[in-house]
Amino acid sequence: MQKLISVRRAEADARQLHRGPAEYTNESKTTKAWLEGALARLLIRATGNLPMRVQVGAGPIAVGPGTIVATLRIRDVPALIKLLAYPDLNFGEGYLDGSIEVEGNLLGLLEAQARTRLRARGKGTLKRLAAAALQMTRSNTLAGSRKNIHHHYDLGNDFYRLWLDQEMVYTCAYFASTDATLEAAQLAKLDHVCRKLRLRAGERVVDAGCGWGALALRAATHYGAKVRAFSLSREQIAYARERARALGVEHSVEFIEDDYRNISGQVDAFVSIGMLEHVGREHFGDLARVIDRSLSETGRGLIHSIGQNEAVPLNPWIEKRIFPGAYPPTVREMVEIFEPLRCSILDVENLRPHYALTIEHWLDRFEAHRDRIADMYDEPFVRAWRLYLCGSIAAFRAGTLQLFQILFNRAGSNNAAWTRDHLYRNPD
Amino acid sequence: MQKLISVRRAEADARQLHRGPAEYTNESKTTKAWLEGALARLLIRATGNLPMRVQVGAGPIAVGPGTIVATLRIRDVPALIKLLAYPDLNFGEGYLDGSIEVEGNLLGLLEAQARTRLRARGKGTLKRLAAAALQMTRSNTLAGSRKNIHHHYDLGNDFYRLWLDQEMVYTCAYFASTDATLEAAQLAKLDHVCRKLRLRAGERVVDAGCGWGALALRAATHYGAKVRAFSLSREQIAYARERARALGVEHSVEFIEDDYRNISGQVDAFVSIGMLEHVGREHFGDLARVIDRSLSETGRGLIHSIGQNEAVPLNPWIEKRIFPGAYPPTVREMVEIFEPLRCSILDVENLRPHYALTIEHWLDRFEAHRDRIADMYDEPFVRAWRLYLCGSIAAFRAGTLQLFQILFNRAGSNNAAWTRDHLYRNPD
Repeated sequence: MQKLISVRRAEADARQLHRGPAEYTNESKTTKAWLEGALARLLIRATGNLPMRVQVGAGPIAVGPGTIVATLRIRDVPALIKLLAYPDLNFGEGYLDGSIEVEGNLLGLLEAQARTRLRARGKGTLKRLAAAALQMTRSNTLAGSRKNIHHHYDLGNDFYRLWLDQEMVYTCAYFASTDATLEAAQLAKLDHVCRKLRLRAGERVVDAGCGWGALALRAATHYGAKVRAFSLSREQIAYARERARALGVEHSVEFIEDDYRNISGQVDAFVSIGMLEHVGREHFGDLARVIDRSLSETGRGLIHSIGQNEAVPLNPWIEKRIFPGAYPPTVREMVEIFEPLRCSILDVENLRPHYALTIEHWLDRFEAHRDRIADMYDEPFVRAWRLYLCGSIAAFRAGTLQLFQILFNRAGSNNAAWTRDHLYRNPD
Repeated sequence: MQKLISVRRAEADARQLHRGPAEYTNESKTTKAWLEGALARLLIRATGNLPMRVQVGAGPIAVGPGTIVATLRIRDVPALIKLLAYPDLNFGEGYLDGSIEVEGNLLGLLEAQARTRLRARGKGTLKRLAAAALQMTRSNTLAGSRKNIHHHYDLGNDFYRLWLDQEMVYTCAYFASTDATLEAAQLAKLDHVCRKLRLRAGERVVDAGCGWGALALRAATHYGAKVRAFSLSREQIAYARERARALGVEHSVEFIEDDYRNISGQVDAFVSIGMLEHVGREHFGDLARVIDRSLSETGRGLIHSIGQNEAVPLNPWIEKRIFPGAYPPTVREMVEIFEPLRCSILDVENLRPHYALTIEHWLDRFEAHRDRIADMYDEPFVRAWRLYLCGSIAAFRAGTLQLFQILFNRAGSNNAAWTRDHLYRNPD
């Protein structure tokens, strides 16, 4: 939710509402109750008339329009004022500390909110400036990136193993059909990427931001590639090395705990799945230089990243609690990386609905293990993670976030596939 | 060829070369002959050592490196000086007026030159400023566009009929395989576009820059769409209306002789094939406004345009003689159209090699009718057209030009295809 209204305005509006037809005549008419009721109604109006019930404290329940998807219970007036003052951040903060409870369909409510927001989205320069300012908060310097990545990805492999697929792929899957399993869809994604890159046996590949190593291992085991794979997460690298040994490809895949900016050497293919959104807008030039010095004259590359249609900042709660330093770029911002590089854009594919479905699978598995996760961490952790997963599904369903795969090669190299038909035929 | 060297410098270099080891000792040592020989060698060097022979007047023949693809015969020293001073424009001008003759493989020479240029391409701001200045020369105001389009497209349907396919499609074809006929490939392109747009019977389509109407007619006859199709070319509109009557779809397709800026009404699909490169960079905002006011909330759109990897001006000879006001945008410049529009980029496909092959077919047919075309127009027209076709093949082969199809829909609309698989299955 955007910053909808100032605190001063909220209180003035609450008084104004009270002067209108009294709705809760059968309720106690204490000052507290009328303020709670009026503020509850104000919240519904200020959020663009979401289909929800709102109750503040023990006050009267205000009801939004249409088919109600959830009831928001807000502990008290201060919690509501906080929410109205900076909803983008404080809905999450309130949900985390329990001062905001959601009964009913949290996901449905978030999706309705994302759709409302999309319709109302402004185009002002102020918002862009605010975006720029917010992006400065967690700088992705070499040290900053290490800290930011550690924050999220070193929560423990045991945690991720509970709700990711068996390959431990923590990025958008590719569902050949909507009823594919998550396991099949993640393997299909790895193959979709390798086939777009037309990887051949013996080719040198660098994987920037390799996670737990699934793509690097697939490229080595199924395409015969020689891979160097980079991640800043110690736990991911340890896990990936262990898997390489278990699969007997430890001589074909080197897992390196280092920053993408330290990548060196020539490669035939440069691939990066789910890293660009953590790079930060101000460091896209760093990535461009790495690609330019790495890619051979016949080289191809693929960048897979969360993106968006307009250059607006990431939700500040997600940036604060989940992905410090993250920013989802627009296609324009992504292709700006390649324009100075003597590279051609070959193919851009938007997989937005696939990411909504991927996270639905994750959420199901997460909820199935919620008690165990509460034991491993604590209750606010469970609530934060649920809100993050539901909010992400909502964003990919509503279209406030997108998922782009961009394939490129060196300009003038005529080694691109003649058509994309080969991606849609069986490998054999 | 870029502006490689100043005239003053060229003459100084020619004197300098003469002081070096004499290569043509068996030639007459008149002042004229040594200047001609030295300038011929200078031209080879200045063009980045192209694999060609060069003869100026009756002077000695200078020979470039590698496997020679062509011999350039330049009438006299003034013609060569003109070429060195502004090769981008004056190679074409000289070829047109016969002061430059090419024996051997003109296409091979142009391709070698395009590749050399790509490697040497600078990144300076001066070049971008020059690009901006050049783009001002033929403004695409409403009146300017009419004049610019008339210049090229009203040469006479009889002329285009000689070398286009039977559908009269004057844009990049889609060859399912490289041995497909041009006729099959143009129909495949029309279907590729209609299927990307997922056109359904009864849907309203606007076709901006409809040419001789092939796409509009295909959308009506094979997809049941209701099409309004716009072109500024009187001859194209007359031809397209006649075909609509012949096909019995005159009530489904309306051909309108008007500017895209005058498009009004709501549509389910907005399509524009081969128009954007004529719109001119400074008018992209006009196109954006037209799309925004036309496209319904569930609308889709496709823009098909010649493009390039870097924002540099179109070859000035092509701009002067063939496509006044034209500019091939980068992907960045194309997607900038959509960023303010609440639209999502769904798919970008680069069909560069398909355009090289398309124009090879056109060139073959053109050369088969060269005598008839010389009778219809004159010899310089034949030469200009040949140079334009060969230069375009060279540019698409070398990668100095690209061909992009960009598919988009309204943000938040969930009516995009689940995968792109449907484009690669047989329609039934």
